[in-house]
Amino acid sequence: MSRTGRRPGESDTRADILTAARRAFAQRGYDNATMRGIARDADVDPALVHHYFGSKQGLFVAAMEFPIDPAAVLPGLLAPGLDGLGDRLVRFFLSVWESTGDKSPFLALIRGAVSHEESASLLREFIGREVLGRVAAAVDATEPELRATLVGSQMVGLAMARYVIRIEPLASADVETVVAAVAPTIQRYLAGSLTA
Amino acid sequence: MSRTGRRPGESDTRADILTAARRAFAQRGYDNATMRGIARDADVDPALVHHYFGSKQGLFVAAMEFPIDPAAVLPGLLAPGLDGLGDRLVRFFLSVWESTGDKSPFLALIRGAVSHEESASLLREFIGREVLGRVAAAVDATEPELRATLVGSQMVGLAMARYVIRIEPLASADVETVVAAVAPTIQRYLAGSLTA
Repeated sequence: MSRTGRRPGESDTRADILTAARRAFAQRGYDNATMRGIARDADVDPALVHHYFGSKQGLFVAAMEFPIDPAAVLPGLLAPGLDGLGDRLVRFFLSVWESTGDKSPFLALIRGAVSHEESASLLREFIGREVLGRVAAAVDATEPELRATLVGSQMVGLAMARYVIRIEPLASADVETVVAAVAPTIQRYLAGSLTA
Repeated sequence: MSRTGRRPGESDTRADILTAARRAFAQRGYDNATMRGIARDADVDPALVHHYFGSKQGLFVAAMEFPIDPAAVLPGLLAPGLDGLGDRLVRFFLSVWESTGDKSPFLALIRGAVSHEESASLLREFIGREVLGRVAAAVDATEPELRATLVGSQMVGLAMARYVIRIEPLASADVETVVAAVAPTIQRYLAGSLTA
């Protein structure tokens, strides 16, 4: 063992796993891809895949170069409870986009999803399970899954209008203005009445 | 003159104008393209372009195969006033998507906008001027333009989540459920408080 704990070739192995993972997710979708199948495809021990990436979700986040790991971030946003959750979610979502801008991996995902059914399906499964599933679990009201997808619809639309299409004055509005305008929408979807 | 009032070659002329229009909008954008320039490019009299399409907006709608003409539709939706406007806008928007589905020209526009800056710019100018501009003019509150773009953000996100990414249960929810959930968001953006 070297003193750093890195074996020669470790970064190659890691890269091989990520390549195999991207292929598996593209071909099988998020739900059907397995850590074991990806390990086999990369010709490495499955334990090594677990060692590097922890879980299928961690592997997906790394393979897709997601700016955040929902498993690491969402519990902290959800923990204080429903009170103020809309505000926390909008603020966090904007902070990720503001810091990555045009380079946002979200943008690459959205591009893929509107152009290819396989990419739409991948995004649908991952966001559905790892993001909206966690949000839905925090909801204490009727129809938690519908509520989570409504939250998703406003977040995606906010990103499209502000960062992709860049329509003014929303594109240049300061973060506090956007949070004040949009957080009550998210809060109502999470905890308010969904009937007119 | 033939008895139908159609000259031989009329459909060719119309097609030539539409081709020239698509080129002009792509190269110059919506704001900078002119009826006169498009007529010159198609080698026809400007009066003929006006005769066939009425206005630059009508020409754009025809060239882009827009499912609706905002100038024809929005006045009717806006006329009854702000009361219930959120409901009317969501209901109309959904009816257009429900009837066109995967074939929606909106989808082609969104695809273009996330992939090419020129398409994003074209969509931004047209939607900004002809759709959101009309909505903003109907708003009787502070920051009408910001309100109109917030409405746009939720509409685009609803289309993305329900029709493009097709995330459940929002994708399969019936129209009345979606209207009940989303119309109050639109109504608040149009007429409610934008500060927390």
